[in-house]
Amino acid sequence: MEGFTLIDDRPVDHALYAAHRDFFDATRPETPCLLLDLDVVSARYRELRAGLPDAAVYYAVKANADPDLLRHLVELGCGFDVASVGEVDACLAAGADPASISFGNTVKKESAIRYAHERGIRLFSVDSAAELAKIARAAPGAEVCCRFIVRTTGAQWPISRKFGCTEDDAVALLRDAVSLGLTPRGTTFHVGSQQREPDSWATGVATAARVAAKLAAEGVELDLLNLGGGLPVRYEETVPSLQTYFAAIDRAVTASFPTRPALIVEPGRYLPGDAGMIRSEVVLVTERENGLRWVYLDVGRYNGLVETDDEAIAFPVVAVRADGGFADEAAPAVLAGPTCDSTDVLYERTPVSLPVDLRPGDHIDILATGAYTTPYASVGFNGFPPLPSHCFGATDH
Amino acid sequence: MEGFTLIDDRPVDHALYAAHRDFFDATRPETPCLLLDLDVVSARYRELRAGLPDAAVYYAVKANADPDLLRHLVELGCGFDVASVGEVDACLAAGADPASISFGNTVKKESAIRYAHERGIRLFSVDSAAELAKIARAAPGAEVCCRFIVRTTGAQWPISRKFGCTEDDAVALLRDAVSLGLTPRGTTFHVGSQQREPDSWATGVATAARVAAKLAAEGVELDLLNLGGGLPVRYEETVPSLQTYFAAIDRAVTASFPTRPALIVEPGRYLPGDAGMIRSEVVLVTERENGLRWVYLDVGRYNGLVETDDEAIAFPVVAVRADGGFADEAAPAVLAGPTCDSTDVLYERTPVSLPVDLRPGDHIDILATGAYTTPYASVGFNGFPPLPSHCFGATDH
Repeated sequence: MEGFTLIDDRPVDHALYAAHRDFFDATRPETPCLLLDLDVVSARYRELRAGLPDAAVYYAVKANADPDLLRHLVELGCGFDVASVGEVDACLAAGADPASISFGNTVKKESAIRYAHERGIRLFSVDSAAELAKIARAAPGAEVCCRFIVRTTGAQWPISRKFGCTEDDAVALLRDAVSLGLTPRGTTFHVGSQQREPDSWATGVATAARVAAKLAAEGVELDLLNLGGGLPVRYEETVPSLQTYFAAIDRAVTASFPTRPALIVEPGRYLPGDAGMIRSEVVLVTERENGLRWVYLDVGRYNGLVETDDEAIAFPVVAVRADGGFADEAAPAVLAGPTCDSTDVLYERTPVSLPVDLRPGDHIDILATGAYTTPYASVGFNGFPPLPSHCFGATDH
Repeated sequence: MEGFTLIDDRPVDHALYAAHRDFFDATRPETPCLLLDLDVVSARYRELRAGLPDAAVYYAVKANADPDLLRHLVELGCGFDVASVGEVDACLAAGADPASISFGNTVKKESAIRYAHERGIRLFSVDSAAELAKIARAAPGAEVCCRFIVRTTGAQWPISRKFGCTEDDAVALLRDAVSLGLTPRGTTFHVGSQQREPDSWATGVATAARVAAKLAAEGVELDLLNLGGGLPVRYEETVPSLQTYFAAIDRAVTASFPTRPALIVEPGRYLPGDAGMIRSEVVLVTERENGLRWVYLDVGRYNGLVETDDEAIAFPVVAVRADGGFADEAAPAVLAGPTCDSTDVLYERTPVSLPVDLRPGDHIDILATGAYTTPYASVGFNGFPPLPSHCFGATDH
């Protein structure tokens, strides 16, 4: 086993990290790369199923569309929330049942709606009359789920005003769906990504119940509530336990709905986030202005680490040396990516603590990077290729 | 010819735009896409050669690595500034002479230095002792150019502390290059991208002259000055004429250097920026909160328009309808991209003015988008493919 030094006080799951390192040592893929542990994905999936037993899980494919990951989720019985024709194709290629796919993007080309519908997809999200009309034309008879906007705090990435209609508009759109020959199924909302307040779902659930009650009074029965995503990954911060989230959601549904609707949850980050580790190589270590040490890696903002933008996520990092260990002493370092772009800096405002004798050729492992990394990578900015990913676990052991 | 409406008061080169539209009408590529007019690239190249006749032009490949563009630049006699092995390969594949390539990234894997050197590249940039040692090992006898840091204002994207050493370090590194068997050629600096103050080069040129004088006193003769990039594209703002820049640079070199060094300029944005136009399609138009109109396009932050981040660049946009014109009236609209990501919004703080009857299927042309668009596109975030580009001009007419 390689020598390694844990740094900082960002929480590291040591058993998990050891498994990732073992896989790397056994396979030695070229770096930089993302390793994705499918056993962790399975565990998260089962945790979610156990915590919300009557909720169907629709994975938000945008978080990571690795084909092996999608196949694994199909095997687990997971459904999919897709944003585009490209994601429809990716799910079908992985063996997904079209009935387990929700086209959740409320902004779709009419050709995309038709394409999906022709391939058996039945459930489409909507938040405007214009989109509803497109669905009626391109996917006659389809089921629709209306997305309304909720005001929440506590999310690392709050949802903007880009999506979601008002409560009144939701009632009107679902009512109109009937006259357009569509099947109104229910409502959906999103509390924002990496949501740290378990009670954030309560407002949306109450709104959904009011919309359902108003339509029921008109004889339009809704039977579905899509709770969206937002379940957090641990990263450096202390987030409440998942059980707290599940209990809060369950409490809200029970309190608001006289008859419990079918539930959908759409985790993105939550399923593959903790399952991933990026292995990178140190390219240069040098002192810059004010004696500050800069460490340049072969991975950065343009080949995967977009979510270090504004240092939003402090991913745990581990220094690794192939031939022996490091000096005991550590010192702060700015962490930067490999491109000539001056914005390609990962942590400058809050330097990370790294061994004083770190040098080119050493590795830096960046943990909890299974979501929103590889799909954000550029096609090759500065000539650096996109971040490849390698799945292990499940079939491997 | 299609009907179209010019919007806002962002400056549009009408003749150029007409040529772009004609090419689109003749070829009808799938949208979204970038059209790149090689005749504009030729004109900018010649303008630069005429304005600074003794400066060799090394195109910063990171701005746009389209293979047809690179081939065209080779034909024009242009050199190349590369950041990686990927860009070395792209230039060589386009027919570039290795002697016309500068490996300008000061942070390189030793294997990348060796790779480039084995393919005939001779000139490497450096700004640290650790990098100089790598070059000495992996590219024995190579020529080095030392990058120092300059403090400038006036740049849209100022250069951070990520690159560049102090003046004293530059002297020391170039001195050490001799004892490491390398050939010190000169110095380089960067005033920041989209630089709006022509006099910004003066400080760097004076520093370069002092470094050269100090080393000359020790018997180490430098014969090269690399002026970097930073020449601006017009966008919406009033920038001084290029002649003002050329005159300011020429004045600075004449004032600082007793013997004029060989000059290199490394334009990135400047060469293909104005040559490009993105054609996108309107996917949805709907009212959101406060009656604000939102227009969703099939191009956004994750398939090319990264530089609308924080609304940094206000690209001129033109609404186009295939079958006839628009109503005369225009009204403000938020412009957003196609993904489910809430950050995928192009202009919200400063909405753009668009025809009141804009609808799905209409096109929006986004002008001056030839640089830093296609290379930033993600591999397929949300399942939307990268932005394809199509070159025309030069060979076409």
